[in-house]
Amino acid sequence: MQDIQPKAIELNGQPIGGRFPAICAPLVGRTRERLLAEAAAVAARTPDLLEWRADFFEGIADPAEVVSLAGQIRLAARGIPLLFTCRSAREGGEPIALSQQQVVGLYRAVCASGHADIVDFEIGNAPAHFQEVRELSQAHGVKLIGSSHDFERTPTFDVLHRRFADAERLGADIAKVAVMPRDMDDVLALLMATLESSRSLGIPVVSMSMGGPGALTRLCGWAFGSALTFAVGESSSAPGQMPIEDVEAGIAILRRALGQPRA
Amino acid sequence: MQDIQPKAIELNGQPIGGRFPAICAPLVGRTRERLLAEAAAVAARTPDLLEWRADFFEGIADPAEVVSLAGQIRLAARGIPLLFTCRSAREGGEPIALSQQQVVGLYRAVCASGHADIVDFEIGNAPAHFQEVRELSQAHGVKLIGSSHDFERTPTFDVLHRRFADAERLGADIAKVAVMPRDMDDVLALLMATLESSRSLGIPVVSMSMGGPGALTRLCGWAFGSALTFAVGESSSAPGQMPIEDVEAGIAILRRALGQPRA
Repeated sequence: MQDIQPKAIELNGQPIGGRFPAICAPLVGRTRERLLAEAAAVAARTPDLLEWRADFFEGIADPAEVVSLAGQIRLAARGIPLLFTCRSAREGGEPIALSQQQVVGLYRAVCASGHADIVDFEIGNAPAHFQEVRELSQAHGVKLIGSSHDFERTPTFDVLHRRFADAERLGADIAKVAVMPRDMDDVLALLMATLESSRSLGIPVVSMSMGGPGALTRLCGWAFGSALTFAVGESSSAPGQMPIEDVEAGIAILRRALGQPRA
Repeated sequence: MQDIQPKAIELNGQPIGGRFPAICAPLVGRTRERLLAEAAAVAARTPDLLEWRADFFEGIADPAEVVSLAGQIRLAARGIPLLFTCRSAREGGEPIALSQQQVVGLYRAVCASGHADIVDFEIGNAPAHFQEVRELSQAHGVKLIGSSHDFERTPTFDVLHRRFADAERLGADIAKVAVMPRDMDDVLALLMATLESSRSLGIPVVSMSMGGPGALTRLCGWAFGSALTFAVGESSSAPGQMPIEDVEAGIAILRRALGQPRA
C-alpha cells in the first residue's frame, strides 16, 4: 500500500537518534553562557539532533571562539549529534558582519575541528562557495545539508522539486526546503513536491511549510518522505515550530494509526 | 493567511458539541443489549456525535424494534446528538435483508420518531429514493448527510469534487466523501478536493482518506475544511479510525501550533 521508501539521515550507517523522522531542536543563544545553558536544557529533552544556529551568536566573527564553543556545546549535548548552521540573512538568518567567503572559512574551521556531525549550507550561495563547503565537509567526514528557504511564499511544485534536485546535483548529502504558505494549497504543494522528491532523489529530503497553517507538515511530513522535523527545545528558530513533546506525541499518534510502532 | 472559511455542522444554530471539527464515534453492536452498553460507554468518552450504524443490528428488518432501540440509545447518549445510518453493503456496510425501498421506510420511521438528529443516506442510491429521504428528513427537522464511499480506491480530484457537489445538488445538508488511498498521492488528492469543495459548496463538507496511510486526514482534515472526523469509542466502523483520545490530542496539538485555542 504505502509506496514511499523514505530515506533516513544516517550517521555511521544508523538513522540519527534511531528514529524516523528524526527530531532536531535549534539552539539560538546569543552568548557563550546562554548557549551552554540552552544546550544542556535542550539535550535533556532528548531530540535526535541539535542545530546550533551560529548566526545568532554574538561571537560569530571569531572563528577560534566559534570552534571552541562548538566543542563545549558538543560536551553539553551528551552524545546528541550536532548540526552547525550559519543561516544567511538573505534566507531568514540573523544579520552578521561576515562575507560569504568568511562564512566558508568558518565552516572550514568547524569541520576541521570535528565538533560538528552535519553542516547546513544554502544552495543559493555562490556555486564556488557551495563546492568549497562540499569538499571541505567531505574531507572531514561531515555530512552536508543543501538548503533553501523562502519566508515569503511557496513556489510552484516544479520549482520546489527543482530545489530538492539542485541540492543533490550540487553534491549535498541531504536536501532541505523550507517555505512559507499563503494558503492551504501551498501546504499541499510542499507535501506533493516532498513526496515526489523523496521518490526521485537518491538522498534524504527534509521539508517544512512554515507558520501556523504549515505546522501540520511538522507532524505529517515524514509520511510524505521528510526525514527530519524541527521542534522547539527552549526557543524556536522559525515560525510554526512546536515543542518537542508535542511533535513526539503527534508522530506517535500517527504511527499507531498507520500500524507502525515507533520507528 | 488562512483563506478557508470552514462550515461547521450545526444543530439549532450551534456547531455540534461546540467544536470544529466535531468528533463522531460509531456504534456497531449487533444486539440491543450490546448496543445500549456500547452507547453508554462511548458517550462517557464525550464525542460530539454518536453514529448508530444500524446495518450492524440484527433486528434491522423490524422498523418498530429499530425505532424503539433508537429511543433507548438516545437516552443512553445523555444529550449527545445521534446520527442514524444504514450503510449499504455496496458501500461497505453489513449485508442486510432489506430492499432499498424498505430502507427508505426505515429512515421514515426513524425521522418521524424524533430519535435521530441527523441521518446519512448515500448519494449513490436511486435518485427517487434520495429525494424521498431528503423530503421526509426535512419534514421532521432532521439533517441529511449525502455520502459516498469507495473502499477500493481514490478517484481523481475532479471526480471527488463532483461527489461533494452532487450531495449539495441533491439537497443534502452535509456532503461526505470517504475513499481508500493506494498511495500518499491519493491522500493529497482527497485533501485537495476537500479544500476546493469547502470553498465552493454552500454546505459543510466531511471527508476522510481511509486505512493507515489516510489516517492523518482524520487529524488534519479540518485544516482543509472537513467539519467532522470519525474516531473509535469502543469499536471502529472503518479502517484507519483512531481512538477518540488520540484524535482529540492530535487536533489539540495542531490547534496550538496554528495559534488557535480549542474551537
